[in-house]
Amino acid sequence: MAEGRFYLLVLALSALGSVCVLFTVYWMWSWHGGFAWDGSILTFNCHPVLMVAGMVVVYSAASLVYRLPQSWVGPKLPWKIAHASLHLLAFVLTVLGLVAVFRYHNNKHIANLYSLHSWLGITTVFFFACQWLLGFTVFLLPWASLWLRSLLKPIHVFFGASILALAMASVISGINEKLFFSLKNATRPYSSLPGEAVFANSTGMLVVAFGLLVLYVLQASSWKRPEVGITTEGQPLLRERE
Amino acid sequence: MAEGRFYLLVLALSALGSVCVLFTVYWMWSWHGGFAWDGSILTFNCHPVLMVAGMVVVYSAASLVYRLPQSWVGPKLPWKIAHASLHLLAFVLTVLGLVAVFRYHNNKHIANLYSLHSWLGITTVFFFACQWLLGFTVFLLPWASLWLRSLLKPIHVFFGASILALAMASVISGINEKLFFSLKNATRPYSSLPGEAVFANSTGMLVVAFGLLVLYVLQASSWKRPEVGITTEGQPLLRERE
Repeated sequence: MAEGRFYLLVLALSALGSVCVLFTVYWMWSWHGGFAWDGSILTFNCHPVLMVAGMVVVYSAASLVYRLPQSWVGPKLPWKIAHASLHLLAFVLTVLGLVAVFRYHNNKHIANLYSLHSWLGITTVFFFACQWLLGFTVFLLPWASLWLRSLLKPIHVFFGASILALAMASVISGINEKLFFSLKNATRPYSSLPGEAVFANSTGMLVVAFGLLVLYVLQASSWKRPEVGITTEGQPLLRERE
Repeated sequence: MAEGRFYLLVLALSALGSVCVLFTVYWMWSWHGGFAWDGSILTFNCHPVLMVAGMVVVYSAASLVYRLPQSWVGPKLPWKIAHASLHLLAFVLTVLGLVAVFRYHNNKHIANLYSLHSWLGITTVFFFACQWLLGFTVFLLPWASLWLRSLLKPIHVFFGASILALAMASVISGINEKLFFSLKNATRPYSSLPGEAVFANSTGMLVVAFGLLVLYVLQASSWKRPEVGITTEGQPLLRERE
């Protein structure tokens, strides 16, 4: 029954995650003219899409890999590789999202990294980079001792969920900030809740709903890979023979 | 050793939580003229202070009650009452924080609840109200069966942490929004990072650091009240004799 509920939730999460990305694309497409990579405002438009897709949706998919019941039995190696690879894809999308906003700012001589949104966002990406490097070095490469792995595993798990929460906060403050920029025109101020405001606010709330559902699945004990002893848990990549 | 580390963290959290509130007071005092309850902009200034104090700091203190080693042994009733009372205090501060912003908006004929910050904030307060009522009704009053308590406990715990995460996101987007309002003057735009921007951004980052530390303590297994069987765990208030 727990397995059935899990797949139902994965289905709901896939749908909700796709809606989050598609809504962000539609927001940038319909109200802000679409996408480009030439340093214009259309380059900026890639930023919200890449951040929602990378830091929230693909990141979440990568985090949930060990919750798939198929990953509970047999060799852990393929799932470790899937976990690390999906997180790497999330990181690449995130860095592209950062490049988009820096490229636009630099082209238009707009200051970088001044708003609280940007401070939090860049901190989140920094944590994500450290987390990925730590995960790769300690849990995938063979050198780390079982003692070190056991010590770092709860920290790795905690920061995994925390980075998603910080990404959600960054997305919320980012959408809020963008709407204050784009709806400052007196004919359609943000405070009159024009179509764009309702649509983008709703997109933000959907991102929060998605993130909360992912965090719920991550912490629910019935969907955690059963512990089979420290030897298997701490098995390094290059010692596995499967 | 785990106990010593816990008290060290509680000390750090008390200091950091106080700094978060004091910094918010200082921001509103030094750059925005202080506080009042007359519907003027000085009434609005109570909003950030009450939200950081209520939804983040007192809320966190209330959440951590069951992590105090003293609460691990003996009757659970006093700790249940402390948990519920502190959360009630957090809720009262939060509602006062909402009243402050509605009072200012209504007095100045400014629209309510249009920004994503306000949508997320009001949703967070709604979840908090449901969570408190559910906790009071199911875990403190004597009617609920042990089956119902066991069913709802993980949901109560999950939403406890989630509401704090949502409150952090609301605070971040709120500080960001306030700075875009107050620093739109061309002589000291937000993008030039004047003193107020650096100070308020730093306050936001401190709130995030505080919230993450609290979430870390909440999930760390070594600081959880040891499970002593469902009978004690599910003990309702009015059946306790202590």
